[in-house]
Amino acid sequence: MTANTASPLSNEAIVAALSAIVGPQACLSQAPDLQPFVTDYRGLYVGQAAAVVLPNSTEQVSQVMAWCHAHGVVVVPQGGNTSLMGGAVPEPQGQAVVLNLRRMNQVLAVDTVNDTLTLQAGVTLNAARKAAEDAGRLFPLRIGSEGSCQIGGNISTNAGGTAVLRYGNMRDLVLGVEAVLPDGRIYSGLRGLRKDNTGYDLKQLFIGSEGTLGIVTAAVLKLMPQPTASSVALAAVASPAAAVALLGEAKKTAGQAVTAFELISGPALDLVLGYLGKVKSPFEARHDWMVLIELTSGASAEGLDQTLMQVLESGLESGLVLDATLAQSGADAQTFWRIREEISDAQTRTGGSIKCDVSVPLSRIAAFIEEATAAVLALEPQTRMIVYGHMGDGNVHFNPLRPADRPAKDYLGAFYEPISRQVDSLAHAAGGSISAEHGVGVAKRDDLSHYKSEVELALMWQIKKALDPQGLLNPGKVLPAPVAAQA
Amino acid sequence: MTANTASPLSNEAIVAALSAIVGPQACLSQAPDLQPFVTDYRGLYVGQAAAVVLPNSTEQVSQVMAWCHAHGVVVVPQGGNTSLMGGAVPEPQGQAVVLNLRRMNQVLAVDTVNDTLTLQAGVTLNAARKAAEDAGRLFPLRIGSEGSCQIGGNISTNAGGTAVLRYGNMRDLVLGVEAVLPDGRIYSGLRGLRKDNTGYDLKQLFIGSEGTLGIVTAAVLKLMPQPTASSVALAAVASPAAAVALLGEAKKTAGQAVTAFELISGPALDLVLGYLGKVKSPFEARHDWMVLIELTSGASAEGLDQTLMQVLESGLESGLVLDATLAQSGADAQTFWRIREEISDAQTRTGGSIKCDVSVPLSRIAAFIEEATAAVLALEPQTRMIVYGHMGDGNVHFNPLRPADRPAKDYLGAFYEPISRQVDSLAHAAGGSISAEHGVGVAKRDDLSHYKSEVELALMWQIKKALDPQGLLNPGKVLPAPVAAQA
Repeated sequence: MTANTASPLSNEAIVAALSAIVGPQACLSQAPDLQPFVTDYRGLYVGQAAAVVLPNSTEQVSQVMAWCHAHGVVVVPQGGNTSLMGGAVPEPQGQAVVLNLRRMNQVLAVDTVNDTLTLQAGVTLNAARKAAEDAGRLFPLRIGSEGSCQIGGNISTNAGGTAVLRYGNMRDLVLGVEAVLPDGRIYSGLRGLRKDNTGYDLKQLFIGSEGTLGIVTAAVLKLMPQPTASSVALAAVASPAAAVALLGEAKKTAGQAVTAFELISGPALDLVLGYLGKVKSPFEARHDWMVLIELTSGASAEGLDQTLMQVLESGLESGLVLDATLAQSGADAQTFWRIREEISDAQTRTGGSIKCDVSVPLSRIAAFIEEATAAVLALEPQTRMIVYGHMGDGNVHFNPLRPADRPAKDYLGAFYEPISRQVDSLAHAAGGSISAEHGVGVAKRDDLSHYKSEVELALMWQIKKALDPQGLLNPGKVLPAPVAAQA
Repeated sequence: MTANTASPLSNEAIVAALSAIVGPQACLSQAPDLQPFVTDYRGLYVGQAAAVVLPNSTEQVSQVMAWCHAHGVVVVPQGGNTSLMGGAVPEPQGQAVVLNLRRMNQVLAVDTVNDTLTLQAGVTLNAARKAAEDAGRLFPLRIGSEGSCQIGGNISTNAGGTAVLRYGNMRDLVLGVEAVLPDGRIYSGLRGLRKDNTGYDLKQLFIGSEGTLGIVTAAVLKLMPQPTASSVALAAVASPAAAVALLGEAKKTAGQAVTAFELISGPALDLVLGYLGKVKSPFEARHDWMVLIELTSGASAEGLDQTLMQVLESGLESGLVLDATLAQSGADAQTFWRIREEISDAQTRTGGSIKCDVSVPLSRIAAFIEEATAAVLALEPQTRMIVYGHMGDGNVHFNPLRPADRPAKDYLGAFYEPISRQVDSLAHAAGGSISAEHGVGVAKRDDLSHYKSEVELALMWQIKKALDPQGLLNPGKVLPAPVAAQA
């Protein structure tokens, strides 16, 4: 299966037909207008498109898809265009149509008895969280791009983030999906049910498949009780293994109140403090490893700080914890979180980091970090080990960063390939994933050939071909080229 | 697509070939040996089989499937054979092979750092819970048949039960699956990862598809912290609407500690007390509606009873609650749960109940119960309204029972069709599901034609044909016959 990139239609004919569906204002075709839609978030991938359409209804999406299907035109669905994997921009050649959902940004219903939020796919994550908050509820997904990423994209990429430990990934937060299929048919699954065993759970097809099987146009999301209390601490720990042991203690003592458990390496803290003017290290000494722990509770508010203190004190006694500081106020908690959340930006501003988003079982993560660090330092001992993220989920952003005195281009040219391959291989060997939460897009597509079994790749293609036999929906993403026998 | 029920092979040839794979002791072919495997739990469906195979390894399952695939022989996967929908027995005609997983009953690994349990599909739910408990963890799935149902069946049917409110359905508890495909290939997805976005989430295909797409042979399950405290109460409430409002209060006060919230109608309690010799009603007066509430907590043990008392007292003040009794001991709590759990058996012993397992959004469940009750009583005013179950999930077992003086056969003959159709239609009209947790099997298969859209049915068939083009795996289950245009 290959995408139909040689449509016999002129770009003008495509624009004329789609303008008739969405209106001329909502069908962009001039190069400067197209530019932000064909360039990915990091500026690493620049695609080519005949048009960008901005439909305002599921019906319009359906009509666009039906027309493109009938005429062999490729469609690339796009939400906030915040993919880190180049998953939402078209391929460099061809006559793709980018279908951006931003105008479909209505909250359709908030049901505080059923605890559900029904909304169009183009609602930003922030707006969804706000709609929940206004109704006295929590929508718990929390990721860095929440101001611009959209719910449709969060669903299509099965977004993760910093509250997965307690609330799960996006897949766990979706009760119903409406999606437009590659041929324009509408799958209407906007049900707000916690139990429904009437046949195949079709919505799962559209969650995490990065827009290659259908375009999510609306969804029903779960709402949670708002936490009435939270307690946040930063703890310096002796090692990643100590962090894992401390997590075990926290779960034993605080149960499901453990909402976030984030690892921060010493060099990651150094980097952030270098950029954040007024923020000082919460610790007197410099430490190699730290964790941010957040407990939240919707029940008995009192006692959460004591519970967390108990975890930390027992950690200090047993030597797992070297030093610890409990947030004494909301402002403290915000500062702790800010330190954690600025790591990504600090890396971007520094330039020259090799981003590996891996997960391994918690029982093997400490050994993985040790082995992968040794492998990296054997290649370039001056590498700064920016290692951080969602340790509670077994997920670390393992991002070796160029030495301070070495140019980014030079470092990446020499080490991007060997380091990312080695880190991924070590994660895979530990029973892990080479893309825990960032997805595949085009960036990791060919890597799947190395790390997925033949059966897995064949099954993915069987599903793709069943739903999109022409290969018109987001081609070139997620699925590595099939080997001859499967083609 | 039709199942190949006219294989040119003799039964003897099938038995000979499969005996060579699994050994003669593990390939049954005599009628008396076959009988328990071809008859469903309730004795309502009796199928026909050429053989029953009892493989003891994934490799054997793979070889059996490969042989059957090559020879056009139908295979019906079977776990504990506790399906309420006839989902695990063969069709009445043909040369099916029943593939029972009971010999694959090994717990493969317990990882208390990663909080995962890896096991073969034939482990019973009780044994899985026991393995978790022995490791100081909780595997939270709780259903009536837990002594005999198997994990593979729980996965294939996406089992629900009484702890879904807090812990989710089986789908939410599965991290990894190993499954044998219709052609004998093995999908090896036994990963214990909480985050893995490397392509389509293939395990979802095998969860809840009732053995029509593959045979689950092993799984990695999530383990939870063991609750350190629980508090259980029975409360008489003014109406289903009052029950829903009380649930809202409980969630507001106790947050995620609310683990179970089960509705019990007056006639359901009457029925149970009639059978349970020594157990008396916990209430002095008779009430039309009651709820069983369970809070559990892994954190601060103290305070849970007070929290529940607070919920109940505020309910008494506002008139939602008419009377309430808090379990003063573990024995009390067990009695309360026993009352709830015996409802199913009490119905079986009475005979003549029409079992509807529906879910609707919580915001519409009270109105649904009212409307459906009125519809039933309009047909037969003496019907006993056995209405109970997992109200916290919007799921009720709505089981109209014959009047005490009317024979079961007579009542079911007159009312089974019209009542179940009317209850299902009202649930559907309220945005609900006609099978919340029991699945489809053969019993509800043709009903899907009424309640699923054309697009949904077509998508289900697209997936089925992609994975099982010959239609050899559990044919006649889940998918209603395709309409001509889709065939």
